[in-house]
Amino acid sequence: MAINDVQLQQDLNIVPFVSVDHMMKIVGKLGIENMLKGIADYVEEDFKRWELFDKTPRVAAHSHDGVIELMPTSDGEHYGFKYVNGHPKNMKEGLQTVTAFGVLSKVYTGYPILLSEMTILTALRTAATSVVAAKQLARKDSRCMALIGNGAQSEFQALAFKTMLGIDQLRLYDIDPAATAKFISNMQGYNFDIVACQSAREAAQSADIITTVTADKLNATILTDDMVADGVHINAIGGDCPGKTELEKALVLRAKLFVEYPPQTRIEGELQQLDDDYPVNELWQVIRGELAGRTNDSEITLFDSVGFATEDFSALRYIHDQIDRPGMGDMYENLDMIADPDDPRDLFGMVRRSGAMAKVAA
Amino acid sequence: MAINDVQLQQDLNIVPFVSVDHMMKIVGKLGIENMLKGIADYVEEDFKRWELFDKTPRVAAHSHDGVIELMPTSDGEHYGFKYVNGHPKNMKEGLQTVTAFGVLSKVYTGYPILLSEMTILTALRTAATSVVAAKQLARKDSRCMALIGNGAQSEFQALAFKTMLGIDQLRLYDIDPAATAKFISNMQGYNFDIVACQSAREAAQSADIITTVTADKLNATILTDDMVADGVHINAIGGDCPGKTELEKALVLRAKLFVEYPPQTRIEGELQQLDDDYPVNELWQVIRGELAGRTNDSEITLFDSVGFATEDFSALRYIHDQIDRPGMGDMYENLDMIADPDDPRDLFGMVRRSGAMAKVAA
Repeated sequence: MAINDVQLQQDLNIVPFVSVDHMMKIVGKLGIENMLKGIADYVEEDFKRWELFDKTPRVAAHSHDGVIELMPTSDGEHYGFKYVNGHPKNMKEGLQTVTAFGVLSKVYTGYPILLSEMTILTALRTAATSVVAAKQLARKDSRCMALIGNGAQSEFQALAFKTMLGIDQLRLYDIDPAATAKFISNMQGYNFDIVACQSAREAAQSADIITTVTADKLNATILTDDMVADGVHINAIGGDCPGKTELEKALVLRAKLFVEYPPQTRIEGELQQLDDDYPVNELWQVIRGELAGRTNDSEITLFDSVGFATEDFSALRYIHDQIDRPGMGDMYENLDMIADPDDPRDLFGMVRRSGAMAKVAA
Repeated sequence: MAINDVQLQQDLNIVPFVSVDHMMKIVGKLGIENMLKGIADYVEEDFKRWELFDKTPRVAAHSHDGVIELMPTSDGEHYGFKYVNGHPKNMKEGLQTVTAFGVLSKVYTGYPILLSEMTILTALRTAATSVVAAKQLARKDSRCMALIGNGAQSEFQALAFKTMLGIDQLRLYDIDPAATAKFISNMQGYNFDIVACQSAREAAQSADIITTVTADKLNATILTDDMVADGVHINAIGGDCPGKTELEKALVLRAKLFVEYPPQTRIEGELQQLDDDYPVNELWQVIRGELAGRTNDSEITLFDSVGFATEDFSALRYIHDQIDRPGMGDMYENLDMIADPDDPRDLFGMVRRSGAMAKVAA
């Protein structure tokens, strides 16, 4: 999975750009299941290299209407960051709640080597990461997943769990039945056994895994303690910024907690409901086999997911490696993004010689 | 100078992109002097609105070979950030020491409205900011500037000072005579009276303004206290990251100090040589007339410039407004950067309906 920069080293001023349209073409070419698997492999690989990463909580600019965040990280060889917004009010105006793009660079030169849309890619990496965690934390005999919240992320979750964990029974609930109908329509042909439920409580009944992925920007109680049976794995996706949670505190206290990067989850996850020093388990240690995941069939495991910069880094690395393969030449375009004068000290001369400044010098 | 979003509101998924080539065309169309003046106006305007800005020191990822930084800020209405690297060793390998690009977004939606190259733009805004400070801090009768360091930033500094302050005599020095020769060649036709000097000391002699803009990533002593006469304004550009300074400590102590954003300058500027609570003057207060700049013709003023996120924000705002003017349609291209499904909750359906997933669903 090493990054191959042969092509990129030839034209350092050029940055390959994967547009939304390109990303859809990549999905078509590789197949969405293969992409989810591929990204999950990269996410897992990077969790295993956890100490190498420069880790920092995301840099957030909060406003009344939402948040704009930068999520940088580096493994020492490459550097990546994602720009992502979260605007729950956008949906009512026909806009995406979350949009994103990202950049991958070489640490040695500081030059970018990939610019990519990340709205679709974030949906893929979030679902892939959920499965990376569930592989460690869900009961091995899990077949049925409750999906509470049937918005933009829900189908990606369903397909990722089906592809990698064999989940083929879904119990759906959304406060808006139109969202559930959209989900069912989109999933035709994927061979799920689907039950549309009238409440979150009904959806949670008999589920082996409960995925909460709602979008309101407030402390909500989507799932209460009494809705959850012993042995369930909870995949909590929607509680991902300060003041936004989905689970009842008693449920969080009852579960065995697993997180990505504790300093960020304590601010943004379900964990924000608990004391600052409440003990948690770090997913990377479980993946490396240094810490136990699920230890019996009756405990409740909770992946309190907020999305971490390394997962975006993994996804960017994956896309970079894919477009660098033979036959992928029409899956990106080249952007003239980096000024590259023949003499690096002669930026002005480059501009002047471009003919641009004829009027000025005359 | 209000941002006009009429055109952009029609296609929210599209982000205008100003490439390196576009930026050179914009320079040609508008004229470099007009751009320097225009950007200086925006920089000054934003310094006057200082309290409105969300201010944070840059987010830096340091490595053995250099640094990659993100510089975000927001005035509540717009959000901007710059990606910039600093790799002094790059020059020996034929690469730029500093390359950059940036993004401007709307806070209300979180959607980007401009992606721009910022290698050239940073050179312009840095020179513009130097003049914004020097307007307040240099003696009114200044005619002669020493330029110590004749690399990529030097010509932009010279032109900005000529255009806005009437500086038409230059005294040049660089450890590499080839850099000075390049400068002289580039400045032909701009009617400067130029003296190439054999040392920094010689260059500093009889200068009204001394601009230091060298690139070594280490604590250097480009300018010592005894080289600087009373009444000089020092425009110190090159000391701009931890461990990188240009001035002798005694000289910094002798001067009246002006800075952009103290928490950042204390880490990155000449100020890193002094105590953490050493008193400084903030440039924005001087521009607003709330604090004195130069008060007599004998004091030494020092603008300890490190470059701050608001200056990039001002430059991005300026470019956004320019490309939105009639006749500027070929000064950018449109990037399909933001996923924009008809139903914002139906990201998966957008991907599926693109035909991309035919193979998968079959």
